[in-house]
Amino acid sequence: MSPDDRLLGVRPFRVADDGRTLHLLDQRALPTEERWLELREIEPLAQAIETLAVRGAPAIACVAALGLAIAARGWGDDPIALRRQVSAALDRLAHTRPTAVNLFVALRELADALASLPADADAGQIRARLREVADQHVARELASCLAMAEHGAPLLPDAGGVLTHCNTGALATAGVGTALGVIRRAHALGKRIRVFADETRPVLQGARLTAWELHRDGIPVEVIADNMAGFLMARGEVQAAIVGADRIAANGDVANKIGTYTVAVLCHHHRIPFYVAAPWTTIDPAIAAGAAIPIEERDHLEIHVHGGRRMTPLGVGARNPAFDVTPAALITGYVTERGVFDAEGLRRAIAGGAAR
Amino acid sequence: MSPDDRLLGVRPFRVADDGRTLHLLDQRALPTEERWLELREIEPLAQAIETLAVRGAPAIACVAALGLAIAARGWGDDPIALRRQVSAALDRLAHTRPTAVNLFVALRELADALASLPADADAGQIRARLREVADQHVARELASCLAMAEHGAPLLPDAGGVLTHCNTGALATAGVGTALGVIRRAHALGKRIRVFADETRPVLQGARLTAWELHRDGIPVEVIADNMAGFLMARGEVQAAIVGADRIAANGDVANKIGTYTVAVLCHHHRIPFYVAAPWTTIDPAIAAGAAIPIEERDHLEIHVHGGRRMTPLGVGARNPAFDVTPAALITGYVTERGVFDAEGLRRAIAGGAAR
Repeated sequence: MSPDDRLLGVRPFRVADDGRTLHLLDQRALPTEERWLELREIEPLAQAIETLAVRGAPAIACVAALGLAIAARGWGDDPIALRRQVSAALDRLAHTRPTAVNLFVALRELADALASLPADADAGQIRARLREVADQHVARELASCLAMAEHGAPLLPDAGGVLTHCNTGALATAGVGTALGVIRRAHALGKRIRVFADETRPVLQGARLTAWELHRDGIPVEVIADNMAGFLMARGEVQAAIVGADRIAANGDVANKIGTYTVAVLCHHHRIPFYVAAPWTTIDPAIAAGAAIPIEERDHLEIHVHGGRRMTPLGVGARNPAFDVTPAALITGYVTERGVFDAEGLRRAIAGGAAR
Repeated sequence: MSPDDRLLGVRPFRVADDGRTLHLLDQRALPTEERWLELREIEPLAQAIETLAVRGAPAIACVAALGLAIAARGWGDDPIALRRQVSAALDRLAHTRPTAVNLFVALRELADALASLPADADAGQIRARLREVADQHVARELASCLAMAEHGAPLLPDAGGVLTHCNTGALATAGVGTALGVIRRAHALGKRIRVFADETRPVLQGARLTAWELHRDGIPVEVIADNMAGFLMARGEVQAAIVGADRIAANGDVANKIGTYTVAVLCHHHRIPFYVAAPWTTIDPAIAAGAAIPIEERDHLEIHVHGGRRMTPLGVGARNPAFDVTPAALITGYVTERGVFDAEGLRRAIAGGAAR
């Protein structure tokens, strides 16, 4: 087992050997049950994304691309009809979740591949190309995570508490993870890190998924309610915080799981470094600043119901924004596959990339 | 119905007409069920406090005092034995919850009353005095809440969002509430206030109790996950925050429900006024600063289990501090029954009181 293999962690999806089924680990059932969905068509795939069977910006993108390539196997041999079906599928998948940009990057890659095929390409060629593009997207995401882990690990303390929010691990990516990949690599390097996992209400990705992944991989982890991070920081128990991102604006503002902004403000107040780890696909140069990033408002039942049980009085209202925006000024560093940037450096790199 | 009556809200406890039973609204069952416990002895009373059937610093103190006075009805007519039983009961109740100081104030009042009775007082006199002291404590708490509501209401905006944390309402007091009493009074004065109730993990006093009280009394309320407060503040939806307190140190530092400190830091960052409403009994002049306030660490199952269902993987650790400390520097104003103070004014008043 190479060092890279040990970093991988669990794989949240895989394509069956015959290329006709996408096996998807149903993250809604974790940690109590390890249940796998078998997806062959677009609608179940779209609903799996919408209902959080798979979540995490990079993982959503990989699963959407692979799932579409697999579904295309069932759409017959007429290339015109096939192209039309692919377009409809791209449209359906684009309407699953609005905030993370990686999904739109992957869908655009598929659309571009389709458009750049010769007009007389047959159905087999179209299908092969879609699968190739999807596989490339997955491979690139995985390579990005490995590179981020390498770049980011030196930022973490040799010993101490590292706070993270939501799940940014192997489960949220094609393996390894973004912020959790950095933590994994730091642990592998021998750093004595204790992870505080914000439980991350309302969907509890921290309590259910981050805790499950880290515990499984032997990395010390304690779950806290989201409102306990400030307490631990005030007591000097947190030396760094590292989170992922769902979309990064051209000015470096970061949309990420609701509660991320509060962690950033707390870090700022306590002079604790606050890092964002995200692949370059998370950057959306078309959006100037965070305020323009669309924020998904999810079903209020996620707030009212805990563990299947209604906990608020009937008739009471709720709010459920799934993401918030952390301004670049609160971010100590961005860990990407291209290296670590401060906000100014990231802005320059984004502007340079856009000008390329 | 006088304006005061309309402010009262629900009463979380009452003494039966024959004076032999304390009826206690079991707040663990709210909001789905309105269940009342009947308490006549010390051990069930102590356990009701420990397991949060009653919670909220002022309510705990009232219930402990009344419950002891009622239990004393069953301890026979030998004044020596009765005094010994009262002492043991005071000791048992003092070991229920460590953080709120009001409980200790009430227990000391009872102990002082006992000590100041003539040595030849008979059992009937002892019992009558205990009940009298308990009733006085309850009446004083209620009067304090009404006065706080009056003093605090002008601080709240004429229209806008007011954030609160945990439950500081009628349920947490002898009626009216501390922070919620201020909100109630502002609403009664015609201020168009929308309340954002932090759900307040892990015990969900906000989602279950604050939402229940306010909805019942027709005050607009929306429940949010604790990690959403920053998002709402950044969007300009919160004009003020007001919370209660479990203990206030001589320097003005405030111990209150875990998560309060995070709200205070967020308010500071967004330049939103952050108020603490608490009766004078919450002040502990014997504690110089917040760091010396004992913080209760509660059962980790409160973190692992949501709505009766385990949500974290078995074997994973957790943290569960029930309170945190907000330094005086983050507090815009203290609403007490003696008026509104800033930190410097409160410190002077405390020092003056101690010197009296």
